[in-house]
Amino acid sequence: MTLLHIRKHLDTLAKPTGSLGRLEDLAARLCEMQQTLTPVTAPRRAVLFAADHGVVAEGVSAWPSSVTGHMIRTIVAGRSASARLATTTNTDLRVVDVGSLTEPLAPQPNYRCAKVCSGTRNLALEPALTKDEFHAAFAVGQQEADDAMNAGCQILIAGEMGIGNTTAASCLTALLTGADAHDVVGRGAGADDAVLEKKRHVVRNALARYRHLNSDGAIEAMSGLEIAAMAGFIHETCTRGRTLLLDGFVVTAAALVVAHLWPDAVTRMIAAHRSAEPGHSLALKHLGLEPILDGWRMRLGEATGALTALPLLDAAAAMLGMSTLAEVVGR
Amino acid sequence: MTLLHIRKHLDTLAKPTGSLGRLEDLAARLCEMQQTLTPVTAPRRAVLFAADHGVVAEGVSAWPSSVTGHMIRTIVAGRSASARLATTTNTDLRVVDVGSLTEPLAPQPNYRCAKVCSGTRNLALEPALTKDEFHAAFAVGQQEADDAMNAGCQILIAGEMGIGNTTAASCLTALLTGADAHDVVGRGAGADDAVLEKKRHVVRNALARYRHLNSDGAIEAMSGLEIAAMAGFIHETCTRGRTLLLDGFVVTAAALVVAHLWPDAVTRMIAAHRSAEPGHSLALKHLGLEPILDGWRMRLGEATGALTALPLLDAAAAMLGMSTLAEVVGR
Repeated sequence: MTLLHIRKHLDTLAKPTGSLGRLEDLAARLCEMQQTLTPVTAPRRAVLFAADHGVVAEGVSAWPSSVTGHMIRTIVAGRSASARLATTTNTDLRVVDVGSLTEPLAPQPNYRCAKVCSGTRNLALEPALTKDEFHAAFAVGQQEADDAMNAGCQILIAGEMGIGNTTAASCLTALLTGADAHDVVGRGAGADDAVLEKKRHVVRNALARYRHLNSDGAIEAMSGLEIAAMAGFIHETCTRGRTLLLDGFVVTAAALVVAHLWPDAVTRMIAAHRSAEPGHSLALKHLGLEPILDGWRMRLGEATGALTALPLLDAAAAMLGMSTLAEVVGR
Repeated sequence: MTLLHIRKHLDTLAKPTGSLGRLEDLAARLCEMQQTLTPVTAPRRAVLFAADHGVVAEGVSAWPSSVTGHMIRTIVAGRSASARLATTTNTDLRVVDVGSLTEPLAPQPNYRCAKVCSGTRNLALEPALTKDEFHAAFAVGQQEADDAMNAGCQILIAGEMGIGNTTAASCLTALLTGADAHDVVGRGAGADDAVLEKKRHVVRNALARYRHLNSDGAIEAMSGLEIAAMAGFIHETCTRGRTLLLDGFVVTAAALVVAHLWPDAVTRMIAAHRSAEPGHSLALKHLGLEPILDGWRMRLGEATGALTALPLLDAAAAMLGMSTLAEVVGR
């Protein structure tokens, strides 16, 4: 089923041609991805990967690493913004700890401890991850995507929690888009001017240090465990032909890693929003994606942007059930 | 409860300050309107007012008036875009015929026949409505809003169906914003260049003919029955302090009528989207409203824009249930 065929079907529906605007664009993408004129958007699942970052020692974040553990508990307890948005959109939400500095929680259905190690190394001093560590985290993400798809999920969302991870995402975005560190680095979860300058300095130095490596080596050196896991999650979702709804800057950095390995993965991705982080626009442009929500200035992470935009996919799928013009006038 | 108090509360939540962007703005507006930090967005109801327009005789629409009747039946049968979107967003949807040229349908729970007359007069030749007709339609809208609020609805949506009604809406928008006919008139449900030119001519002449009347007289002369009913619906909703989620160009023309009578009504309105109709941007600017969805190019009417944006209000309300930072860190 080609996009032309889908567009022709949309034009038979009981409405002026194109009068549902972007809702029709989204409907067409869902039809194309699922190869049906009656795509579905449920069940769906958001998996939040959490980890800590050695580079926090450089003073690149307004928050201490302990916040990662606090937020894991808050999400699992259903009291985070992400948990609230997941509930209101009927989305399964899971947290997978792939490498935080916090103690494992007691077993719970929406929580998995799959720590590859306790935080990354400080990328300002040495490569953040070894090849084995990167691959182990990637495999955790693949497994999570497989579990979700085996449970019937059509729409998959990767999200993240990890103090310091916008620094790693900035490094990867600059590496993979070719943009300058100055343009990629933003305030993340609230950096002031001094912290922002430190972040830029760290990203610039990391690129100078690691970009001469082969691309795998450079990615491993500047990645995070949650970013590697999300790359595995996204890769598996796209390989198996389901829809990956992207969240913000850090998730999109993982998507850049996947698109670097396999450019066609992008055909399975829908961008939910344009983050307030400047690097996110550069990443979306590199991937050729227009976000569903623009100008919303969201920058929380935890899949909150994807969960906010998700009902607009539901609307696109629902709209396809309307009458054709022939049915209406023929009555 | 002032906006400052609400903003201070938002800043205590477990997220970087302002990191949910426009979701926080929407949450703040809901809190302010409902005077609580735990606003609700359900139950909600969309009432679609349908009517025909004598001005269609001037060739201002790409569609014949008979389509109004066809669409009433399609909506009532649950097969319109609006009905599909109402179902997916758990929104009550009703159709009220305030003056179509079609025969009344058999009684049905989601349909009401409350015809003031069978279509308006041709505003190119004589005033479309008398004062009594305008007021009768206005009263139908008030009654519908009262019924919805008595059923507990917090969010109310007015929508419309009426071939030719973008011409009436263009007249009212030009009259009430002071904009030029050329800038206000768009292609509506699909006017080609020749029809667009006719529409501009009709709107320009109507303004020249009626704008010297007192404002009530000019509004009645260029209105539609569904526009008058929506004005009554919007006025009643705002008077009783509930939230009115605006749809597109024609509904916003009715909101301009209400704001002309009572400027403070705007404090109860949220704009759902910016329509592809050029006059809609002028109307939103006049009302001082920023739409939830921008650049979505929707122009179907039938409350489809409002129903598409509605889940973003649900997200805003849901987000307010998250933990405070003190709760998270204190654990």
